Amino acid sequence: MIKDHERLDDLHRCGYMIIQDPNQFCFGMDAVLLTGFATVGKDETVLDLGTGTGVIPILLAAKTKAKHLTGIELQPDSADMASRSVKYNNLTERVSIVQGDVKEVENLVQPHSFNVVTANPPYMKFGSGVVDGPSAKAIARHELAMNLDDFVRAAAFALKFGGRLYMVHRPFRLTDIICSLRAHKLEPKVLRFVQPYADKPPNLVLIEARSGGGQELRVLPSLVVYERDGEYTKECYEIYYK
Amino acid sequence: MIKDHERLDDLHRCGYMIIQDPNQFCFGMDAVLLTGFATVGKDETVLDLGTGTGVIPILLAAKTKAKHLTGIELQPDSADMASRSVKYNNLTERVSIVQGDVKEVENLVQPHSFNVVTANPPYMKFGSGVVDGPSAKAIARHELAMNLDDFVRAAAFALKFGGRLYMVHRPFRLTDIICSLRAHKLEPKVLRFVQPYADKPPNLVLIEARSGGGQELRVLPSLVVYERDGEYTKECYEIYYK
Repeated sequence: MIKDHERLDDLHRCGYMIIQDPNQFCFGMDAVLLTGFATVGKDETVLDLGTGTGVIPILLAAKTKAKHLTGIELQPDSADMASRSVKYNNLTERVSIVQGDVKEVENLVQPHSFNVVTANPPYMKFGSGVVDGPSAKAIARHELAMNLDDFVRAAAFALKFGGRLYMVHRPFRLTDIICSLRAHKLEPKVLRFVQPYADKPPNLVLIEARSGGGQELRVLPSLVVYERDGEYTKECYEIYYK
Repeated sequence: MIKDHERLDDLHRCGYMIIQDPNQFCFGMDAVLLTGFATVGKDETVLDLGTGTGVIPILLAAKTKAKHLTGIELQPDSADMASRSVKYNNLTERVSIVQGDVKEVENLVQPHSFNVVTANPPYMKFGSGVVDGPSAKAIARHELAMNLDDFVRAAAFALKFGGRLYMVHRPFRLTDIICSLRAHKLEPKVLRFVQPYADKPPNLVLIEARSGGGQELRVLPSLVVYERDGEYTKECYEIYYK
């Protein structure tokens, strides 16, 4: 089930493992923090946009009582790894991986059918920074195949009225994020910045938006990742291991 | 120069004092923090929208080498107190108070003529919370006479290309603020939340936006007001007294 150039990583949840290719994009802390931030109720349905190797639906299958989780992934190799990880963890009844383009969400899922959408989109704007060709890694990091607005539009299409989008992104894109969310009638409801250390500026932001939600935003105290000595803070340790 | 029902408060800067009416709206920490956040260069011109009793232009006259500062205030009583405070502090050559409506900014100042605009607008949306009649205090706190978008539009009119708007507001309005700024081509550049204590959520947000600025936002570490024992933090103490 695991190919020669791949490896099997421990997710520290329910004994679940994930297949990744160390030469391609591997999941990072952002995906894990998003699964700690997202609230998924019993029997709710979840759609993960740009699921990569499927880390978010697999972790949420472990952490929540979601009825069903679907991951959409454009890149065939990543989608294939995600599907095999689902099988490896015996999750085929609860988790589905769909190979397809977030920009063509209308052809992939039913409209307004999900309670929750999660997204860990590429952070970098098209044309910014060094892009090392249209590799899987570059597509996961840069807005080459799809941009922030494509993700938000897909979420607005997939979510039921009152449903929630949970997204992780970079603070420097916050204006783009907020304007795109409101334009697609996904009202930002909760914002939480993630700081590597208590005295450092945030390098990630977690956002909850609600389809048709009222116009009032709650900003939580920042989530601090590391203590001064480089150990995880208690809160971050629990997101990873408890 | 000071009327019977008024009092004279010490601004702890250059010996400057301010005339306030304890029965009306008196300035708070938000105005002081805004003068600590705003950067005003030598010989720059500043416009303060909704200046109240003039605390922001008077404090900025003390703290910076601004060439000239103008405060616009709708309410005649507040504008009158502000004008008398300017005289009291011998600032008539550097500070002007204009009684007028921010919504009619076109009739009050020259277009695209200021380097810096500051604003401490009413925080509460029209129709929210208890409004105790159209008093000066209610107008300062609630969007009765003018709303956030009126302030942002006025700033966009008054600022030179490349000029900066510095605003203080409540975090729960952040989506409104960011969407309004971008709509008026004042790009949010710096965001700083203010937390009363290190472990409490922010209750204020400071924003710098730039006329015609590039789309990239910097989020600073939060400004914490009090130590655990209730004393000002060093940074906050310096904003007030240094």
